[in-house]
Amino acid sequence: MASNNRSPSLTLLTDFYELSMMQGYLLQKENPGVVFDMFFRRQPFGGGFAVFAGLEDLLKYVSALAFSQEDLAYLESLGAFRPEFLDYLAGFRFTGDIWAMDEGTLAFPGEPLVRVHGSLMETQLIESALLAIINFQTLIATKSARVRQAANGGTVIEFGLRRAQGVDGALSASRAAFIGGAHATSNTLAGKNFGIPVRGTMAHSWVMAFGSEREAFEKYAEIYPDGALLLIDTYDTLGSGIDNAIAIGKRLTAEGHRNFGVRLDSGDLEYLSKKVRQRLDDAGLKEARIVASNELDENIIHQLITQGAPIDIWGVGTNLVTAGGDPALTGVYKIAAREKGGRFVPTIKVSNNPEKTTNPGVKQVWRFTNGAKSPLADLICLADEEPASGKPYTFHHPSGDYRKFVLSEYAGMTPLLGLKMKAGAVVGELPSITAIRSHAGEQLDLLDDTYKRLINPHVYRVSLSDKLGAMKALLVKENLAQGRHR
Amino acid sequence: MASNNRSPSLTLLTDFYELSMMQGYLLQKENPGVVFDMFFRRQPFGGGFAVFAGLEDLLKYVSALAFSQEDLAYLESLGAFRPEFLDYLAGFRFTGDIWAMDEGTLAFPGEPLVRVHGSLMETQLIESALLAIINFQTLIATKSARVRQAANGGTVIEFGLRRAQGVDGALSASRAAFIGGAHATSNTLAGKNFGIPVRGTMAHSWVMAFGSEREAFEKYAEIYPDGALLLIDTYDTLGSGIDNAIAIGKRLTAEGHRNFGVRLDSGDLEYLSKKVRQRLDDAGLKEARIVASNELDENIIHQLITQGAPIDIWGVGTNLVTAGGDPALTGVYKIAAREKGGRFVPTIKVSNNPEKTTNPGVKQVWRFTNGAKSPLADLICLADEEPASGKPYTFHHPSGDYRKFVLSEYAGMTPLLGLKMKAGAVVGELPSITAIRSHAGEQLDLLDDTYKRLINPHVYRVSLSDKLGAMKALLVKENLAQGRHR
Repeated sequence: MASNNRSPSLTLLTDFYELSMMQGYLLQKENPGVVFDMFFRRQPFGGGFAVFAGLEDLLKYVSALAFSQEDLAYLESLGAFRPEFLDYLAGFRFTGDIWAMDEGTLAFPGEPLVRVHGSLMETQLIESALLAIINFQTLIATKSARVRQAANGGTVIEFGLRRAQGVDGALSASRAAFIGGAHATSNTLAGKNFGIPVRGTMAHSWVMAFGSEREAFEKYAEIYPDGALLLIDTYDTLGSGIDNAIAIGKRLTAEGHRNFGVRLDSGDLEYLSKKVRQRLDDAGLKEARIVASNELDENIIHQLITQGAPIDIWGVGTNLVTAGGDPALTGVYKIAAREKGGRFVPTIKVSNNPEKTTNPGVKQVWRFTNGAKSPLADLICLADEEPASGKPYTFHHPSGDYRKFVLSEYAGMTPLLGLKMKAGAVVGELPSITAIRSHAGEQLDLLDDTYKRLINPHVYRVSLSDKLGAMKALLVKENLAQGRHR
Repeated sequence: MASNNRSPSLTLLTDFYELSMMQGYLLQKENPGVVFDMFFRRQPFGGGFAVFAGLEDLLKYVSALAFSQEDLAYLESLGAFRPEFLDYLAGFRFTGDIWAMDEGTLAFPGEPLVRVHGSLMETQLIESALLAIINFQTLIATKSARVRQAANGGTVIEFGLRRAQGVDGALSASRAAFIGGAHATSNTLAGKNFGIPVRGTMAHSWVMAFGSEREAFEKYAEIYPDGALLLIDTYDTLGSGIDNAIAIGKRLTAEGHRNFGVRLDSGDLEYLSKKVRQRLDDAGLKEARIVASNELDENIIHQLITQGAPIDIWGVGTNLVTAGGDPALTGVYKIAAREKGGRFVPTIKVSNNPEKTTNPGVKQVWRFTNGAKSPLADLICLADEEPASGKPYTFHHPSGDYRKFVLSEYAGMTPLLGLKMKAGAVVGELPSITAIRSHAGEQLDLLDDTYKRLINPHVYRVSLSDKLGAMKALLVKENLAQGRHR
């Protein structure tokens, strides 16, 4: 909530241990330059792709970081921080660099979505909020793309405000859902804040507010003769709702009004939509649209489409904004390099599970595409490698085992991480939300259908370059041999 | 995000159809006094109770409602609203009354948690945000109470910021988790905003920032000799972590420092916690505490406790703040009465599914308790009924069928809905968050264990009074017979 006891500044939106560690680093004079990667290990929803989102909010959060007197007084009151640390915080600004994918870029497990360069202290401070922002918006943009995919050309309206996880759970979800492909939101504030189209007509309470369903529809059509979407399930969809709606629809259409339709919000949507379509068609209302809502998700929509339900517009709420079935993207933020004697030395975290061993070094991701610009595979390289087009590349499995393949037939490659913040200042103009949405949509169109199956998709390949693969193998070996950390 | 393009005012945080309908009501001169109920139909997580939360945020949101010039300019830009409606909004303030349960009260399906009295237009405007706020905080307070229950006296720390659904998904979750029984949060801003204890020590990145694990622990203990909770799974929990921690722990303890402990964040928590406990005990560190984290929820905690895992403190993140397994409470907001000729007439929405037929009229909920103050059953009455203690009461099943029982052995009854806002102004002082948390905790302690089972709990009875039951039966009958709405 923005009101009263909710602070408008997000500087303290950080896990307390980031502050404990920052004080520790300051007092121990341990504040080298470092590079952190943000990445995720598993596609949400059992899907084959993710849509990167949240960058604009991340950059705005980082730009605005500053400890107010009130923040410092609060920290002092906790009794855990020394004056020299509070003094340091009083002058704190983020002065690092942020590399990231463009918002709306398709992202795959294991590759860096965001790369942060800065001092150990500043890069730690932003960890929690960075993860919260990117994890959630990427999750919802991905869910939205799946819903859009299932709707097979139909219109998707995000309806989730009332079931969202808090105020920003709603607002950020509306933003991310639009990026992922939803056409509009019901959330008026999201419309205002982000310039997203807003939609909405009537609730059951409107229908019940008048003496009869027919009167309610008439009163509505008087005020909104264009785009009247009448909710026909308040009393009896096939027994009264559709007949009352048809009477209004015929009059509106005869008078030259446009975009008439009906909404179904309960019952068996396949059965009802087919019956309602027939009745509308029989009444000459072939242009009338059918809107469906009620606990929809991509799987239910897919099934309805497959069964031929003639639904034109999908209102998707709870499952879209809360990412029903997989409510968190488990993105992580791991150190990849640290300064030693003036240069960056790659670091690694070796896990018993090879899938969890991190990729060391300062990295760039190159997306290889075919002649139709369809993505073929991603190659994680060291940032100072510049792949030259035309020659074959060996793609090493990220687990570092024997699996690899050679890609020789491709048309080009593009680096995915760009410099978005330099020394604490945003680089260039942020793209508009419609540009971000188009970027996501274009890539989804280009992505092979096998990666877009809702269930059991083909696994898109994310691999390591020769140089990165060799470095990783060496560091794993050293790490296991040394035991120096023990 | 509070920064930049995020509006600090929440007035437009409403589904667009609320505004469409409001304009319709204004133009149709259809703005009677009405009463709306907010209630939910199904306990989340398959559990036996819910903890009502979010009231303070709701009251603050309603109190602050006002359309700014910027809001009005945005609405005008949409081309859907007429000048007389925008003029109305310019002067809009919420002037109704809100009755609600005290925050922290145990709540059950079908009973009103919040009752709103006002004009049709103003009560519709607040629907979406009211539901978003109450649904989410009630959901998380409930989840937190389940986690606390499972922890069986252990300490619970909410760790969810990085996986939460947006900024407010994190902040509201921290608040609600504390109300439901969590002891502290990792979210520093939640600590500041709500006065919740904050906790946090070190991440793996701290351990990796130094030349060795031992050095990292030593450096940490130098700065935080009290309450040093060392993370021992960065390299090898039993191979190095616990030994390095014991060396530090013995020294700190010998020096008189307190609250030493270790944290496990990976691996088999039952096996590791037992081994680590043994090693700590063998080293004479019987007071040392074991903290466990890593994708915990109430079911995993319950299993660990049942298997005797000696874990003292539980760090619960993703599943607590996103309500893993059930990410939305599906609370609804339904009209219960409307003014006609100067008095309130009960309204009903009859559904083919009797469970979805609403309870008509202006209602109060009475909680009947035994001599030990343990809740026995709730009776939904009309607000003008005043149950007299001592006589037997018939409890009618809310579905309106033949099921009923007579309660004659009880010690007292308490009304649950109190007047929290009168003519748009908050009534009295809002309780502190610690008072709310204690209220929830006391009731949970008093609630019979059979309702608190994590799986298949006993179903707490919520019934209708003679008078309400008869009114409902009559209205259902009239409604079905009349067909006037068709």
